[in-house]
Amino acid sequence: QLSTLPGVGQKSAQRLAFHLISRSKESVYEFAKTMVDTRNTIKYCKQCFNISNQELCHICLDSTRQSDILCIVSEPKDIFAIEKAQIFKGYYHVLGGLISPLDGVHPESLRIRELHERMRKESFSEIIIAINSTVEGDTTILFLQNVLSDYSVTVTKLAYGLPMGADIEYTDEVTLQKAIQGRVSI
Amino acid sequence: QLSTLPGVGQKSAQRLAFHLISRSKESVYEFAKTMVDTRNTIKYCKQCFNISNQELCHICLDSTRQSDILCIVSEPKDIFAIEKAQIFKGYYHVLGGLISPLDGVHPESLRIRELHERMRKESFSEIIIAINSTVEGDTTILFLQNVLSDYSVTVTKLAYGLPMGADIEYTDEVTLQKAIQGRVSI
Repeated sequence: QLSTLPGVGQKSAQRLAFHLISRSKESVYEFAKTMVDTRNTIKYCKQCFNISNQELCHICLDSTRQSDILCIVSEPKDIFAIEKAQIFKGYYHVLGGLISPLDGVHPESLRIRELHERMRKESFSEIIIAINSTVEGDTTILFLQNVLSDYSVTVTKLAYGLPMGADIEYTDEVTLQKAIQGRVSI
Repeated sequence: QLSTLPGVGQKSAQRLAFHLISRSKESVYEFAKTMVDTRNTIKYCKQCFNISNQELCHICLDSTRQSDILCIVSEPKDIFAIEKAQIFKGYYHVLGGLISPLDGVHPESLRIRELHERMRKESFSEIIIAINSTVEGDTTILFLQNVLSDYSVTVTKLAYGLPMGADIEYTDEVTLQKAIQGRVSI
């Protein structure tokens, strides 16, 4: 069972198993209970589909945020990453995956209908698509561009270029290409 | 002597020394000769200060390149990196360092006078400053911005953002900030 966890192979699973055996019965029970309780109480926010323990998540409930800007992400964990960067102050929409026909993920499996609903009900001036630039990500970005072209809204995506602290000398060619193509006036 | 090379410590120096001893006299002589010859024949391009074995480097001699766009870099090694990315087709100007008062590198130590000369003689429509974003790099970029403000030319710098293949979840906060700030319309 332990080896089904991500990043845990046969060896680590054995090590974890021995560790659990060595702990007190109560402590293992508490551990297991916390796992089950958390899994049972976790909900998805009805509005943005972030994980939440209430109907609406703490971000959707925060009325001090900018209501005219929406950031579309693939998974709740992306919200955590962006919130940590403390620069985005709008609201989110979690798609719940990326289009990947090979894995059976089609546009219908994503929260596109819910996005349409929000686009009609709320009034956004800008939609930021914060999705990784992979084959699935780029397909999804293209699809979203098409979906959003029905609304009069600015659609943007994250900038690609040198990461902070990067050295031009050691930067891979594609990143350097993007950094030159996306150069900014100063 | 070997331990004065970059990345070579006491141990590696000893290993290299034993290796050299084990090689034939002729091969060591050839090795040493190549080193001295290369050092003696290497010149700096009179125009851009790239390394070269002629008066002008192969880039300055290439008349098929875009003559209205100049890329300012710190060192010749940055030219190599940018050329490998195969996206920039203009000419270069090597400053020969970055402003760093603590290390005794002042603006006068850089090839600013030569830059002024080129700005007057040639007609550039855009100057790309391709300098790493470090304390010294940012100081130099600011200084160059000031220098170039005397000329009617667009000044740009490299884009900062997610590197290729980056995952939003694992990207450091500052890079994610830059990627959001620098987001592009699609």
